[in-house]
Amino acid sequence: MEALDYHAEERRKAEFDLEEMKIVWAGSRQNYEISDRMARLVASDPVFRKDNRTLLSRKDLFKDTLRKAAHAWKRIIELRLSEEEAHMLRSYVDQPAFTDLHWGMFIPAIKGQGTEEQHEKWLPMAYKMQIIGCYAQTELGHGSNVQGLETTATFDPQTDEFVIHSPTLTSSKWWPGGLGKVSTHAVVYARLITGGQDHGVHGFIVQLRSLDDHSPLPGITVGDIGMKFGSGAYNSMDNGLLRFDHVRIPRNQMLMRVSQVTREGKFVQSDVPRQLVYGTMVYVRQTIVSDASCALARAVCIATRYSAVRRQFGSQNGGPETQVIDYKTQQSRLFPLLASAYAFRFVGEWLKWLYADVTRRLQANDFSTLPEAHACTAGLKSMTTSVTADAIEECRKLCGGHGYLSNSGLPELFAVYIPTCTYEGDNVVLLLQVARFLMKTVSQLGSGKKPVGTTAYMGRAEHLMQCRCEVERAEDWLKPSVILEAFEARAFRMSIACAKNLSKFSNPEDGFSELSPDLLEAAIAHCQLIVVSKYIEKLQQDIPGKGVKRQLEILCNVYALHLLHKHLGDFVTTRCITPKQGALANEQLRLLYSQVRPNAITLVDAFNYTDHYLGSVLGCYNGNVYQRLYEEAWKDPLNETVVPDGYLEYVRPILKQHIRTARL
Amino acid sequence: MEALDYHAEERRKAEFDLEEMKIVWAGSRQNYEISDRMARLVASDPVFRKDNRTLLSRKDLFKDTLRKAAHAWKRIIELRLSEEEAHMLRSYVDQPAFTDLHWGMFIPAIKGQGTEEQHEKWLPMAYKMQIIGCYAQTELGHGSNVQGLETTATFDPQTDEFVIHSPTLTSSKWWPGGLGKVSTHAVVYARLITGGQDHGVHGFIVQLRSLDDHSPLPGITVGDIGMKFGSGAYNSMDNGLLRFDHVRIPRNQMLMRVSQVTREGKFVQSDVPRQLVYGTMVYVRQTIVSDASCALARAVCIATRYSAVRRQFGSQNGGPETQVIDYKTQQSRLFPLLASAYAFRFVGEWLKWLYADVTRRLQANDFSTLPEAHACTAGLKSMTTSVTADAIEECRKLCGGHGYLSNSGLPELFAVYIPTCTYEGDNVVLLLQVARFLMKTVSQLGSGKKPVGTTAYMGRAEHLMQCRCEVERAEDWLKPSVILEAFEARAFRMSIACAKNLSKFSNPEDGFSELSPDLLEAAIAHCQLIVVSKYIEKLQQDIPGKGVKRQLEILCNVYALHLLHKHLGDFVTTRCITPKQGALANEQLRLLYSQVRPNAITLVDAFNYTDHYLGSVLGCYNGNVYQRLYEEAWKDPLNETVVPDGYLEYVRPILKQHIRTARL
Repeated sequence: MEALDYHAEERRKAEFDLEEMKIVWAGSRQNYEISDRMARLVASDPVFRKDNRTLLSRKDLFKDTLRKAAHAWKRIIELRLSEEEAHMLRSYVDQPAFTDLHWGMFIPAIKGQGTEEQHEKWLPMAYKMQIIGCYAQTELGHGSNVQGLETTATFDPQTDEFVIHSPTLTSSKWWPGGLGKVSTHAVVYARLITGGQDHGVHGFIVQLRSLDDHSPLPGITVGDIGMKFGSGAYNSMDNGLLRFDHVRIPRNQMLMRVSQVTREGKFVQSDVPRQLVYGTMVYVRQTIVSDASCALARAVCIATRYSAVRRQFGSQNGGPETQVIDYKTQQSRLFPLLASAYAFRFVGEWLKWLYADVTRRLQANDFSTLPEAHACTAGLKSMTTSVTADAIEECRKLCGGHGYLSNSGLPELFAVYIPTCTYEGDNVVLLLQVARFLMKTVSQLGSGKKPVGTTAYMGRAEHLMQCRCEVERAEDWLKPSVILEAFEARAFRMSIACAKNLSKFSNPEDGFSELSPDLLEAAIAHCQLIVVSKYIEKLQQDIPGKGVKRQLEILCNVYALHLLHKHLGDFVTTRCITPKQGALANEQLRLLYSQVRPNAITLVDAFNYTDHYLGSVLGCYNGNVYQRLYEEAWKDPLNETVVPDGYLEYVRPILKQHIRTARL
Repeated sequence: MEALDYHAEERRKAEFDLEEMKIVWAGSRQNYEISDRMARLVASDPVFRKDNRTLLSRKDLFKDTLRKAAHAWKRIIELRLSEEEAHMLRSYVDQPAFTDLHWGMFIPAIKGQGTEEQHEKWLPMAYKMQIIGCYAQTELGHGSNVQGLETTATFDPQTDEFVIHSPTLTSSKWWPGGLGKVSTHAVVYARLITGGQDHGVHGFIVQLRSLDDHSPLPGITVGDIGMKFGSGAYNSMDNGLLRFDHVRIPRNQMLMRVSQVTREGKFVQSDVPRQLVYGTMVYVRQTIVSDASCALARAVCIATRYSAVRRQFGSQNGGPETQVIDYKTQQSRLFPLLASAYAFRFVGEWLKWLYADVTRRLQANDFSTLPEAHACTAGLKSMTTSVTADAIEECRKLCGGHGYLSNSGLPELFAVYIPTCTYEGDNVVLLLQVARFLMKTVSQLGSGKKPVGTTAYMGRAEHLMQCRCEVERAEDWLKPSVILEAFEARAFRMSIACAKNLSKFSNPEDGFSELSPDLLEAAIAHCQLIVVSKYIEKLQQDIPGKGVKRQLEILCNVYALHLLHKHLGDFVTTRCITPKQGALANEQLRLLYSQVRPNAITLVDAFNYTDHYLGSVLGCYNGNVYQRLYEEAWKDPLNETVVPDGYLEYVRPILKQHIRTARL
């Protein structure tokens, strides 16, 4: 049975070198090897089993998560894993846990906002997990508007302490992961008040629970905020609530890299540039884009493999029915998502470079590219996560009825993914920031200030306003230069149209608010252009392996042309292309789908996901779907007994009621 | 506290008569009164409590469902409720149960496909629930392609019986609701085989379980197929699997209204027209459209109320922040959904009329309108359910982070709703049927055969190919005739374009398959036109109540113009409107949003949903959201203890590991 592979024939069709494609996907041979090793390590360890997850009660699921986190930590130490390997191992465990916040938010916050002294005191304990921390920013009443947080940290010069307090119900901290049940410490964001003056929101290290018995310290009310979307999914995380009743902490627990409070209670700004904070944001959002490509790839892998197993209609002369992956309706929904997974992967890779570049510049006190880099990562975070969330659900629909079963893996993937659209910047709020940046860039075009980085195309204003798409035949749409110009012209003209409409308002803020739906569309056009252009840049690199580059070119064209079709109104109303050219693009798209088809299974094999990580009966590597569905069904607790609990009390009396009726 | 109403001010803003709007929404004063009475009956009964549902294990949830079903049945009998009232009561219980299939599929199947004799034998038992039935059609390997079902019913002339058998793994019945644990009987669809000849798929009444002890009868393997999307949601339903090992049933248990098998094993078609089956489909799908408007209204009600509570950014001089419902980005996403809820309501109402009309004609042996009615209901089922599924998730996103909490009600609403896109006809398959019908209609245009019903507009081919939209100013877009013509021209021209492209293929089936993505778009355009035109027709009726008609007109315009903006590419590339006219529509849309704004809360109050039915902390009537969120949080099982289960085994050892390390 082990040698069985229902996809064998599909795999033989591939026209490219799978091993090389795996390396392209992973970013480098080294990444590929680490990733492969960590994935297998997790998959082979029975403690990390996750197929029963959706059946666990909240408490059992939470305990299971604690167990996995402890086991992961044990393995990390035993195997002396590097930070990168440890991170990868945790991600393959694939169960949100307090450790995500400890490593991903608590430590980075101290590193980014703490002084050298604070680093020395807190980081060694945190690295050894002798303390466990979380990031307590969001409140019941405030998320996006961080400057509106209500928690206060009032300096008491008498005792040299801050008094942390929750003055209102809505000031309760709400949502921080790891807070509800586990964290011993938190970086708490609160309004700094000294001498009666409000200095805005700052971070403070606050101990929440006793290191001896884990009980909350005096003045601290802490708990879990309750069930979230789905079964399993994020319910393994103790997203928490937290209230302070005049809790006192020493003055040196304010994170003082950027601002300080002196012994006398004086508020002082250090000479460390505040822009550093944007550097951290660029970092975090870049990882989110990279995670988006992973999540999207997972969903696409499941839907693609199952679409090759599933057959429906089209049997001729008693032969087998048609594989649903052969239907153009299926291809036109699935292959653009496959292409998007690759596109997001490459733009994520480029963002890694961008972050390194920004860091280098910051260290040299060069802040010139920071606003552009910040806008660009904000936009890409928003666009890639929104697309991924929708795409996971689309992949579920592409699996028909069986996609609705938990063991398809898609319901939980969706439920666990969607908060990404909200955390680290609500996607709509972020796009509005991008739009604001675009309007600013447009307004400076005449001033001689040259737009940089991903907005550099705006420097060719005159050309982009006048250029005409030269497509005459469908295959003209395969030229990268043609695609790029169409996307540049469309993005630019949409920005210009917004700027023009804005100028009609006497109050620019009123105009911005009134036109915000249009501004969102202009921001999306800009973000799509970035992804397309970075993909095209990627293709200009040397890509080894038989047929690999060719496949990537096909997917790049699919990505660009499906966007063009989806946003045809944008392209045509800005007169970047004619209706006829739009129809030709659509025609070319259909041809491209036929070229993807024979390679589809192998293109998702390149993601190198283990069956454990995929967690999907429909997406399993060997395609033995129906047998597994049947076996899995019997594991449901309802099948423990033939006659269900409740039959005697609630079903039998109904069936037998004529006896009761007769008695009346 | 009871008198508290955070929405009081919002409610004072309304410019229309709420009570009259409630009647419009319900369809009639009588509907309104029944619905109101049933909703309160359920809400006030502690057995029907559902706020703890997402916390229950699968087994407990299932037992809870059996209990509610039994209690509902008891109340229905005690209160001598009419069939309509009983149906409404069950729908307000709001928990999928085996009774849905018993009343909604098992009984209708017998009524529709059984003979008089069969009605007399089976229906009285079913009506009294002395037997409980389900509808066993879908198999592991076949859903959409009903003609491909593999289960066999072979006639044995020796014993005058059918032998029901599952010849393959994929022939296992899979998905039928109520099958897994409860049903005593099923209507089973199987290939009829007599004298070695296959006569296609027919329905058979098969007893599955003993009426004495509920154990499965010999030869029957039956069980639950396992967990589905989400917590709570459809997991209250025992969707089942079923295998037959040569199970024998008497010949008279084949449903024989349309076809019969004689004592000798001869297959005979009766003179009852087979088209009757389409009449049933029209009925079922019409109820699905009506349910879509309910589900959409629920999500919109929650998002609208919470958007008026939630404030973020925009505080001036220390005043309160801006209600998020005042942001144009929020309005441009939310108000089109509010308008869609009303639009779907009205098209659902019209479908009820259509079903009555079809039934009248069938009884008079007039089949002329049936294909059109069938295509129209298939398309509307597909379009309204797809939009509703996406809209529920959009409403969740509109609630920001808190929408992700189970107690927002939106996660479960989404999880429980989405199978509607798959059952009773996969939405893509249905749209392709519509497209096929449209192509047929187009091909007959020259033949003198006049298109009927919702395709009547195609009779004005020449005009629709030539007409030019006459909008010159934004307010021109308020004219119903202008909107209607634009939608008709767009739908018609898209169909014509498809037909033209199809004609280029030598094999029409190849063409249909190759162009299917375009055909889907043409079908959607046609369905949207139907909804718009039925809404406009509704507005031509006499609608009493101060300001009611005016509000409905505004929403109608919002519905039409948001579609126009969303599908701008369609309208512009078919040259139905110019880019400039598209921009004017968008401008008008913004003005319309401002007119909806003061009425938004009252427009969702008109749905008359109880807090029990809404099941949402964010959407509660009085808007006391934050207090309730805080109180609900503490009810999570994780909060039963301060220190979580697992702390001693899995957290403390990590925190204290320096001791262990020292020991090494």
